Amino acid sequence: MKSPLIAIVLGSDSDLPLIKSGIESLKSFNISYEVRILSAHRCPDEVRKFARSASKRGIKAIIACAGMAAHLPGVIASFTIVPVIGVPLPSKMLKGVDSLASILQMPAGIPVATMSIGEPGVRNGILFALEIIALNNERVKRQLIKHKDNLRRKVLEKDEKVATIFS
Amino acid sequence: MKSPLIAIVLGSDSDLPLIKSGIESLKSFNISYEVRILSAHRCPDEVRKFARSASKRGIKAIIACAGMAAHLPGVIASFTIVPVIGVPLPSKMLKGVDSLASILQMPAGIPVATMSIGEPGVRNGILFALEIIALNNERVKRQLIKHKDNLRRKVLEKDEKVATIFS
Amino acid sequence: MKSPLIAIVLGSDSDLPLIKSGIESLKSFNISYEVRILSAHRCPDEVRKFARSASKRGIKAIIACAGMAAHLPGVIASFTIVPVIGVPLPSKMLKGVDSLASILQMPAGIPVATMSIGEPGVRNGILFALEIIALNNERVKRQLIKHKDNLRRKVLEKDEKVATIFS
Amino acid sequence: MKSPLIAIVLGSDSDLPLIKSGIESLKSFNISYEVRILSAHRCPDEVRKFARSASKRGIKAIIACAGMAAHLPGVIASFTIVPVIGVPLPSKMLKGVDSLASILQMPAGIPVATMSIGEPGVRNGILFALEIIALNNERVKRQLIKHKDNLRRKVLEKDEKVATIFS
Amino acid sequence: MKSPLIAIVLGSDSDLPLIKSGIESLKSFNISYEVRILSAHRCPDEVRKFARSASKRGIKAIIACAGMAAHLPGVIASFTIVPVIGVPLPSKMLKGVDSLASILQMPAGIPVATMSIGEPGVRNGILFALEIIALNNERVKRQLIKHKDNLRRKVLEKDEKVATIFS
Amino acid sequence: MKSPLIAIVLGSDSDLPLIKSGIESLKSFNISYEVRILSAHRCPDEVRKFARSASKRGIKAIIACAGMAAHLPGVIASFTIVPVIGVPLPSKMLKGVDSLASILQMPAGIPVATMSIGEPGVRNGILFALEIIALNNERVKRQLIKHKDNLRRKVLEKDEKVATIFS
Amino acid sequence: MKSPLIAIVLGSDSDLPLIKSGIESLKSFNISYEVRILSAHRCPDEVRKFARSASKRGIKAIIACAGMAAHLPGVIASFTIVPVIGVPLPSKMLKGVDSLASILQMPAGIPVATMSIGEPGVRNGILFALEIIALNNERVKRQLIKHKDNLRRKVLEKDEKVATIFS
Amino acid sequence: MKSPLIAIVLGSDSDLPLIKSGIESLKSFNISYEVRILSAHRCPDEVRKFARSASKRGIKAIIACAGMAAHLPGVIASFTIVPVIGVPLPSKMLKGVDSLASILQMPAGIPVATMSIGEPGVRNGILFALEIIALNNERVKRQLIKHKDNLRRKVLEKDEKVATIFS
Repeated sequence: MKSPLIAIVLGSDSDLPLIKSGIESLKSFNISYEVRILSAHRCPDEVRKFARSASKRGIKAIIACAGMAAHLPGVIASFTIVPVIGVPLPSKMLKGVDSLASILQMPAGIPVATMSIGEPGVRNGILFALEIIALNNERVKRQLIKHKDNLRRKVLEKDEKVATIFS
Repeated sequence: MKSPLIAIVLGSDSDLPLIKSGIESLKSFNISYEVRILSAHRCPDEVRKFARSASKRGIKAIIACAGMAAHLPGVIASFTIVPVIGVPLPSKMLKGVDSLASILQMPAGIPVATMSIGEPGVRNGILFALEIIALNNERVKRQLIKHKDNLRRKVLEKDEKVATIFS
Repeated sequence: MKSPLIAIVLGSDSDLPLIKSGIESLKSFNISYEVRILSAHRCPDEVRKFARSASKRGIKAIIACAGMAAHLPGVIASFTIVPVIGVPLPSKMLKGVDSLASILQMPAGIPVATMSIGEPGVRNGILFALEIIALNNERVKRQLIKHKDNLRRKVLEKDEKVATIFS
Repeated sequence: MKSPLIAIVLGSDSDLPLIKSGIESLKSFNISYEVRILSAHRCPDEVRKFARSASKRGIKAIIACAGMAAHLPGVIASFTIVPVIGVPLPSKMLKGVDSLASILQMPAGIPVATMSIGEPGVRNGILFALEIIALNNERVKRQLIKHKDNLRRKVLEKDEKVATIFS
Repeated sequence: MKSPLIAIVLGSDSDLPLIKSGIESLKSFNISYEVRILSAHRCPDEVRKFARSASKRGIKAIIACAGMAAHLPGVIASFTIVPVIGVPLPSKMLKGVDSLASILQMPAGIPVATMSIGEPGVRNGILFALEIIALNNERVKRQLIKHKDNLRRKVLEKDEKVATIFS
Repeated sequence: MKSPLIAIVLGSDSDLPLIKSGIESLKSFNISYEVRILSAHRCPDEVRKFARSASKRGIKAIIACAGMAAHLPGVIASFTIVPVIGVPLPSKMLKGVDSLASILQMPAGIPVATMSIGEPGVRNGILFALEIIALNNERVKRQLIKHKDNLRRKVLEKDEKVATIFS
Repeated sequence: MKSPLIAIVLGSDSDLPLIKSGIESLKSFNISYEVRILSAHRCPDEVRKFARSASKRGIKAIIACAGMAAHLPGVIASFTIVPVIGVPLPSKMLKGVDSLASILQMPAGIPVATMSIGEPGVRNGILFALEIIALNNERVKRQLIKHKDNLRRKVLEKDEKVATIFS
Repeated sequence: MKSPLIAIVLGSDSDLPLIKSGIESLKSFNISYEVRILSAHRCPDEVRKFARSASKRGIKAIIACAGMAAHLPGVIASFTIVPVIGVPLPSKMLKGVDSLASILQMPAGIPVATMSIGEPGVRNGILFALEIIALNNERVKRQLIKHKDNLRRKVLEKDEKVATIFS
């Protein structure tokens, strides 16, 4: 595989189903990526090593997904200037309100870009990474515009179908 | 002025003091920018025109700051594939919890990158935009690494000073 | 069908079951209506076109239902002076607290009337639209008074039935 | 004074400053109105009498503003089919989150239209009432369109002014 | 049946299962009671009639249980000086946080005693009513002391049983 | 002083200003009372002694006011069958949401009657205690009815005054 | 069994499944413990007796788990200077937010160490107690270091496995 | 100074006033301590070095105080088995609810003991550390018992004083 442009980091392999749809997007955009399982609390040295090397390895965006006291995106951001996108995953009790606070409320100086809670957030995190890549890649840019137009078309099709039901 | 690389959009000119520190960063990084006052609810057509033209005009990131039912970042994102960074501004009563929800919880397909609430969020939004630019700009990259190191040094200086007080 | 007096707009066709009971009310009140599937984020131009034409087409009230960062009611309200009624739909994680904030906290100048979260809110939104129509329609007025009296009777019947159980 | 078209009801005269700006709108729109101080908990019989007579007296919309366990809009709505608009006023401790829940979460069958918390909500409640009146009043309609355009112009003026500062 | 000392009022007969355990307590304490289905929003006149007559009919405590914008306890309290105990019932979306605010945050002058959310609250509301009756009824007082001692014994039995498991 | 009928217990003497208005009510109702400073966490044995003796000493209601992890009402209730009324006092950070949860969410079997947060809650707690006493005291009953009527009159006076301003 | 070093106290035996995994840790660390069922509200005297004797009996840490208005950890802490660790258990409606506030917000002077909500909190409470014991026990210290290393290894194994899936 | 037994770590020197009272306790208990200014996000390598060496240096407890997305306690805990006590400091907007979630909701395996929000939490964190030391230090144990008794005496003195005011 080519050297990855995007890295997706999960705190646990039990979260793998949440990235399935996003991975498919990456494949359809033909963008190289890597998936890592790393825990800010259980293997902090490996997280540091990963974050430190990201820039040199050519990573353009890191999507870090974590639940509860979600330190993963913030800890990665403390070691790199590569854009870090954080996705709060829902916890059993607080439904992601805890992970949201832990990811969102970064102090001035160490930015993390937070996406919406759970699976839609993972998909948007990957799309946002593609938007970053598109700034210097005409092919990805054209594909994103087409993708956006497809979203629009699907809604309009539904709108037409509903019009026939209620008339 | 050069064609702007970063656009900062505010819903109201009363929020201008919040971007002061961030604008100074942009100047010290020597990055061209523009500041706009646009309201998703009061001048939707101008917002649309702005968002539609952003990509062609060479804008690399849009930082949209808004309070209450903060639609500005999401409305801009609906019209462009340029990365949109949303900053929830604190409202009088709900202290930004309302604007946070309105910015963060974007549906899958239309990503907005949310920063922390208020002034630290504006600063981080601008830093995040610089991280995006740094991906293809060695000068900005070096400056960001230096900036990060400066943050570190300041903490260490305070740590040393405190050590003398409590020994 | 006659030219519609009421428009119900949904962000997604998966929300159609939520409006079933409300549609039946509209039929029993013999009020013409239309149902649209439109997304503020995915087809903003169509939303604008719809909102812009509502007044001329004789629409008396627009009931816009949306979840998560629910921009639909606010975006419609930015383009029209027809009364816009917003219904926050429950999202998976935040249970509609996010959509509530996005709909409720409109800035001064662009009003949206918010109803309770979910299905009861859709029903109340439609009833509220009928109350607006009743201001200039004696038949609808009489039917609303009768409907209100029916609600009362049903409670009193239950009260009587319970009295027999517990005596 | 002419028979009022709009009634504004407050739970306490200490809230009068909150309606000042809204009253000025009503005057500029030349719409007759009345202001009442009525408490759902302290004078329930007078609230009932007021609500029962509203329709016959030609009231087109009731704007009820209340704090804490804000029962006023819901109690009025239980006695009338005139559109009731509820404005949650901020309480000292819970900042209007309590009054919001009490006004918003009406059960199916008795709609109340909730506006944003506090002063902006009062202004929007009055604007929303004007939108209802405009449905059958061409003069008010034209004035509302003009008012909306003024809001837009004010933002664009600020946008221009800011452009000169930052160029 | 004897003239009731305690009245339990529900907003809907679908809530009857929640009072089952409490009714059994009342029977075991041999205290006369009545159960009513009354809605503050759907039959306000009947609620008023009920509340107005409570004192004369010898009611010593009214336990009013309601969900969503739970006005029932507050509306009853506005018409009587008989102690009103409010129980917030969980709504589908906000899990009783909405009904809690609507019941708890009564303004100074019209007290409502709020119990915990849902079924435990109903049981405690009935127990609290029995504590009020016990102030002037030695038999009920002795039974309450015994009941409290039984609660204690049950815990101690479990504590002993657990001791054998873990030794 | 006569043997007290009502006991007001505060966790700290810094809360004394909050009970001033309530104490005046008690004096105007000519009801004997006592005020205690007791902390569930700092002097648990004294709390226990107080609660254990309350019934024998003829106390008819205990109003316990506490902030933060407000254990005072619940700990008192664990030792007595005298009605315990809890008032959540606002803490600096969480504004009484913490004390509310600690007082309200009592498990089935040990009821505590919760009043609104802060000073209005103290006043309502004392009024609620008077309602309990009124059940067997005709004089207090008549005074409570008069007090309720006074509240009503004051609102009506304000309503009349406002009518003159806005006509 | 040896005299226990750690005491785990539950408010109800229905919570026993939550401590299963934690008990296994204690066995693998070969640390003596006891499990008690005690309720702050239902058997306050037994709670007091337990807490008073803990220090003399050689208990090094008390892990108290409780739900709703969770007074158990705070009441125990009021009677002892042995470190008290509180675990908020999720309640049916408020999902542990109520018990969290009741445990966390202890006033200055009576510390309780709060762990995360539910089962992970019980496990962490026991691990934290082992960290306290490890301060003076080299064997436990070595085992904790090994345990921490095992957590790390498990993540790294998953990371390697995922690498093979996505390459 | 002697080798420190307790370490207090702050994310910023602006938080020093919050630890003043706690430092005085440490002096009165004659316990050696150190104060550090360290930021999990700005100097992660120094935090790691500090945490890694804590056990060897004889530190018995680390009290880490942080605001917003408060990673400091969790990051320290990821590198050591010395007991880590986290104190959530109030942020400007979210008043410490954000830092609370970030500190409290640690995943199973990496415990952090959370104290109440703000200054009372700092004092309790230090007291809790003293309770840990007291387990193997008879002098500290006696002092803690005396300290607890002083807290009790102060309440009882206030109780007596209040008794004279209200009799």
